[in-house]
Amino acid sequence: MKHKSFGKMQCPVARGLERVGEWWSMLIIRDALHGMTRFDQFEESLGIAPNMLTRRLGALVKAGVLEKHRYSDRPPRYEYVLTERGRDFQPVIVAMQAWGNKHFAPEGASVLLVHAKTGATADPVMVDRKTGRPLTGPEYVVAPGPAAGEATRRKLASSTWGVTHAASAPLAPFERHSIRKSKVRS
Amino acid sequence: MKHKSFGKMQCPVARGLERVGEWWSMLIIRDALHGMTRFDQFEESLGIAPNMLTRRLGALVKAGVLEKHRYSDRPPRYEYVLTERGRDFQPVIVAMQAWGNKHFAPEGASVLLVHAKTGATADPVMVDRKTGRPLTGPEYVVAPGPAAGEATRRKLASSTWGVTHAASAPLAPFERHSIRKSKVRS
Repeated sequence: MKHKSFGKMQCPVARGLERVGEWWSMLIIRDALHGMTRFDQFEESLGIAPNMLTRRLGALVKAGVLEKHRYSDRPPRYEYVLTERGRDFQPVIVAMQAWGNKHFAPEGASVLLVHAKTGATADPVMVDRKTGRPLTGPEYVVAPGPAAGEATRRKLASSTWGVTHAASAPLAPFERHSIRKSKVRS
Repeated sequence: MKHKSFGKMQCPVARGLERVGEWWSMLIIRDALHGMTRFDQFEESLGIAPNMLTRRLGALVKAGVLEKHRYSDRPPRYEYVLTERGRDFQPVIVAMQAWGNKHFAPEGASVLLVHAKTGATADPVMVDRKTGRPLTGPEYVVAPGPAAGEATRRKLASSTWGVTHAASAPLAPFERHSIRKSKVRS
């Protein structure tokens, strides 16, 4: 990991990415959520070089996302099983799946979530557990948590999270320019 | 992008990651969701090398996640604004935020989503829009979509998605071993 600045970051997104912020890692977790546990299963599914797979599995074990179990003594064989932390990653994969289906599947979806009994296709949406209200509209905003430091508070104070997405159109270039200029002057 | 095998993948997660599967890219989208638009804002927020930032912004523009607008002619200045595709990435960031808060913030959360009016902290959960039922339990399973090819169908046919997570504890090593052995024999 060469990105030193990440170590200092309080942002939970950055901290999460520190552990899985790499294609292979997320796809390994995806495959593990599909029930794969063995090296050769991941290798075949991903078409990944063995040394790279060894490294990524090791990093996920170290991050507490996978647990390594020996399932055979002679020859020694290991399997990689999702921990609770790993299983908790499922919403990220589901959100990514929905995004991929909407924006990068012009020929139609190839993978869907369906209700196990009715077969009805799910339309994934992120809501608040208690209120059931969507979290990605203007109703919810970001706020510093109890452990937020100065830098995080400053950053969040100027955030337009939620508001940005409510806006139907960006400001005209001239307008933006004037706003910026007048800010500089004041 | 050196991972040639991804081009062939039908999986929407893989296709999504193809566009943003890299720390910086996701953090740039995160910052854009917070309202940042200018090169120097991203640079300051991320502590990223300018040439790397230029490359990542270019890749996100090419992927249709950001749009580049000129907001000043002399000197020429550009800003990067989220497209609909970029704004639609918000659930992935929210899911990652929840995961990071739960698993990598031992000192407590530093960033939260709160209701804009009541200030109540949100507890993010992914549900089906129509039924309101959680998508990450055993109630929903993966299924091939209309565009699924042979490889995808095969892969999904052996998936234990959903089932894996319903299991309260992993099988004992001996039990697993026996299952595998007996499978091989049959």
